[in-house]
Amino acid sequence: MKAFKELKRACYEANMELNALNLVIYTFGNVSAVDRDAGVFAIKPSGVPYELLKAEDMVILDYDNRLIEGAMRPSSDTKTHAWLYKNWEDIGGIAHTHATYSVSWAQAQRDIPIFGTTHADHLTQDIPCAPPMSDELIEGNYEHNTGIQITDCFSQRKLDYREVPMVLIGNHGPFTWGKDAAKAVYHSRVLEELAKMAYLTLQINPQAPRLKDALVKKHYDRKHGKDAYYGQN
Amino acid sequence: MKAFKELKRACYEANMELNALNLVIYTFGNVSAVDRDAGVFAIKPSGVPYELLKAEDMVILDYDNRLIEGAMRPSSDTKTHAWLYKNWEDIGGIAHTHATYSVSWAQAQRDIPIFGTTHADHLTQDIPCAPPMSDELIEGNYEHNTGIQITDCFSQRKLDYREVPMVLIGNHGPFTWGKDAAKAVYHSRVLEELAKMAYLTLQINPQAPRLKDALVKKHYDRKHGKDAYYGQN
Amino acid sequence: MKAFKELKRACYEANMELNALNLVIYTFGNVSAVDRDAGVFAIKPSGVPYELLKAEDMVILDYDNRLIEGAMRPSSDTKTHAWLYKNWEDIGGIAHTHATYSVSWAQAQRDIPIFGTTHADHLTQDIPCAPPMSDELIEGNYEHNTGIQITDCFSQRKLDYREVPMVLIGNHGPFTWGKDAAKAVYHSRVLEELAKMAYLTLQINPQAPRLKDALVKKHYDRKHGKDAYYGQN
Amino acid sequence: MKAFKELKRACYEANMELNALNLVIYTFGNVSAVDRDAGVFAIKPSGVPYELLKAEDMVILDYDNRLIEGAMRPSSDTKTHAWLYKNWEDIGGIAHTHATYSVSWAQAQRDIPIFGTTHADHLTQDIPCAPPMSDELIEGNYEHNTGIQITDCFSQRKLDYREVPMVLIGNHGPFTWGKDAAKAVYHSRVLEELAKMAYLTLQINPQAPRLKDALVKKHYDRKHGKDAYYGQN
Repeated sequence: MKAFKELKRACYEANMELNALNLVIYTFGNVSAVDRDAGVFAIKPSGVPYELLKAEDMVILDYDNRLIEGAMRPSSDTKTHAWLYKNWEDIGGIAHTHATYSVSWAQAQRDIPIFGTTHADHLTQDIPCAPPMSDELIEGNYEHNTGIQITDCFSQRKLDYREVPMVLIGNHGPFTWGKDAAKAVYHSRVLEELAKMAYLTLQINPQAPRLKDALVKKHYDRKHGKDAYYGQN
Repeated sequence: MKAFKELKRACYEANMELNALNLVIYTFGNVSAVDRDAGVFAIKPSGVPYELLKAEDMVILDYDNRLIEGAMRPSSDTKTHAWLYKNWEDIGGIAHTHATYSVSWAQAQRDIPIFGTTHADHLTQDIPCAPPMSDELIEGNYEHNTGIQITDCFSQRKLDYREVPMVLIGNHGPFTWGKDAAKAVYHSRVLEELAKMAYLTLQINPQAPRLKDALVKKHYDRKHGKDAYYGQN
Repeated sequence: MKAFKELKRACYEANMELNALNLVIYTFGNVSAVDRDAGVFAIKPSGVPYELLKAEDMVILDYDNRLIEGAMRPSSDTKTHAWLYKNWEDIGGIAHTHATYSVSWAQAQRDIPIFGTTHADHLTQDIPCAPPMSDELIEGNYEHNTGIQITDCFSQRKLDYREVPMVLIGNHGPFTWGKDAAKAVYHSRVLEELAKMAYLTLQINPQAPRLKDALVKKHYDRKHGKDAYYGQN
Repeated sequence: MKAFKELKRACYEANMELNALNLVIYTFGNVSAVDRDAGVFAIKPSGVPYELLKAEDMVILDYDNRLIEGAMRPSSDTKTHAWLYKNWEDIGGIAHTHATYSVSWAQAQRDIPIFGTTHADHLTQDIPCAPPMSDELIEGNYEHNTGIQITDCFSQRKLDYREVPMVLIGNHGPFTWGKDAAKAVYHSRVLEELAKMAYLTLQINPQAPRLKDALVKKHYDRKHGKDAYYGQN
């Protein structure tokens, strides 16, 4: 269908970028891109090697996981994406990886503390690690429930998904999002760097203090506040 | 002999892939591929640099280490491969590396705990580390006995080689296998990633818990169970 | 303006080198180059991806942050550069990165101890980590005050910026400098290596001793002393 | 002089290989190659970037550091090379690097324990770390005394340089050697890998045991013993 050509292209390019940034090995990751007007999203097909992937292979679904267009089976994590699109209306793209340092924090079941300005340039909070699900939820509609696990985590901690564009699922790995699929991939790359830096920081100084509030605010605001002066816009 | 051309080609390509994936330095690794109908396997010649390696250099042997075809001396680890092919009839290919993180766990003489879903996507058990052999076995038919060490480890722990496609030999390094040589190499790459993630997980949280059973089962089954829904088949 | 063409070119090339050396991801860094005769410096525009950057995009300012030439907004860290040029007259170029190991030490708020001759080849002191600023200074003219934080740190510790060409800002990251922009980038790369080696040294031996004075002096002098015999000049 | 053309070429190529293997940053390393019949060796000129280096730039000296041929100043570590050539007559090439993991063990002032078969494939001993020199020796003929420090370390520990082709100088870094310059570089690469693996092994298991004697002997002999069966010769 011609109408989704651009959406598939954006989704394809974001998936290829995930691979180019070394955030995935083999097919251990997926990116989706949404078209809010049409109420659908494009997502990578499941288990297709990046070197064989083509833009037209992207699968189109609605927020209730109904197949709209596509010959291939969508990513096994599709229902998590759908849930987030359905509930968080300002998201334009979502990325999921098994990147090394991000997954290691998820396996350690620890939030990533905000230790420096690299972190504060992107978000003002520790990066949350949602606890593993109950057995009942795992054995049920697993990927759908993973989405609920994410939104519940944000509700309980009173986090705003527009200000915290990333989460770790305990024992699993990261999901990140943004205004479009490219930005979601950007946040996956940033998260992997923050995860590595935080790991090293604690190795060098197990008592390293959290970044002070004034610096958190200063760095976030100079990039994202109303008087932001970072970048060209 | 023309009949083995395809077998040598598959073996050669898997060896080159091992190198391309940075799982070996110099000649510290080897891959073999079996032809079950002919009852023979092809293996890398010993100590030949990858940039000089050609498909026709692959050496053909039977499961009792009798040379069937080939002008070069086979890998020094050939007898380990032969033993595994002889005893585990569903294996199509075997890979051996000295990859950094895998070897480090082997040197630490520790099983790699199952900490996350990346691990459970591939196997439901901790990755076993077989203990170093007795002096008598080392001084005897060493590489043959290394094969026995592996099969004994699996027997004693009641592990099924079809479900656990990898092992560490204490103080030495990993052997991995699969339905063909390419899959054996794939498992070497996956093992190296799991070894790195498990190392980092324990650095971040020395009390990190093992993955809960419900998640182990869920992730393994969605890729390998009878109702698997990962991938396109 | 034709007069600044060479200055912009030197600044541009140093910024591209920072990227080529993998010291930055995305736009997390900046380099400037000074023209002491003209009393101006060139600096990278804020937030422009390296693949889009052109030499003519470099922004020219004086030491009081007055725009002299350029259509784009300069780096958000410009005022820190300006302060250092104004106060340390022998500096020809300045680099700032968020390189992984350097930032990790900054986040750990620890000086990097001098552990070996690689370090002593470049400087005779521990690499200083300036403490984070007071809230008042952060909320004020932040980037200007960051410059003051650096010069105050050197005054208080009686360090000479000509002999110690690098500093860590606590919770933020490194600034480095040199006789020109290329040398500033060189010092960023050296610092990242020293930061990684010092981290590993402490992991291997938490009681590792500081390099003895005779070796500090010997290595520094053979490269920088009056009878230096390293290199071709 | 035409007679040294081949020697210079071998030296040049080994230096370039050191760089290609990522064992050096900038000019932090050097390789030499000896011509035993002529009683001279070729060595890299001091501080020349690899991208500018040419085979004809190599400097020729005798074992008493007398310049035989060459327009450039030789490596600042030349006297260490000369001493080793003079005293250890079976050495054909020497390499010195500041490779990350090797230097970190040197800075930690610890021998690298033999933990596995990767190590035993190359040498049967822990990799010795010579202690830093006395102040008197450092302030004297420093690089010459570094050579003495190495040969003294081997004498005191009753090590044979033909069986242990590598050493760490405390607080400085590694020297490695071999039958020719290429083999010396090979040993630098192997050492860096052993250093990384030993570091990780101790992180995973601080009580990791030394490799048992039977395995040390088995692996060394299958590669270097009189009935060696590794490789094609």
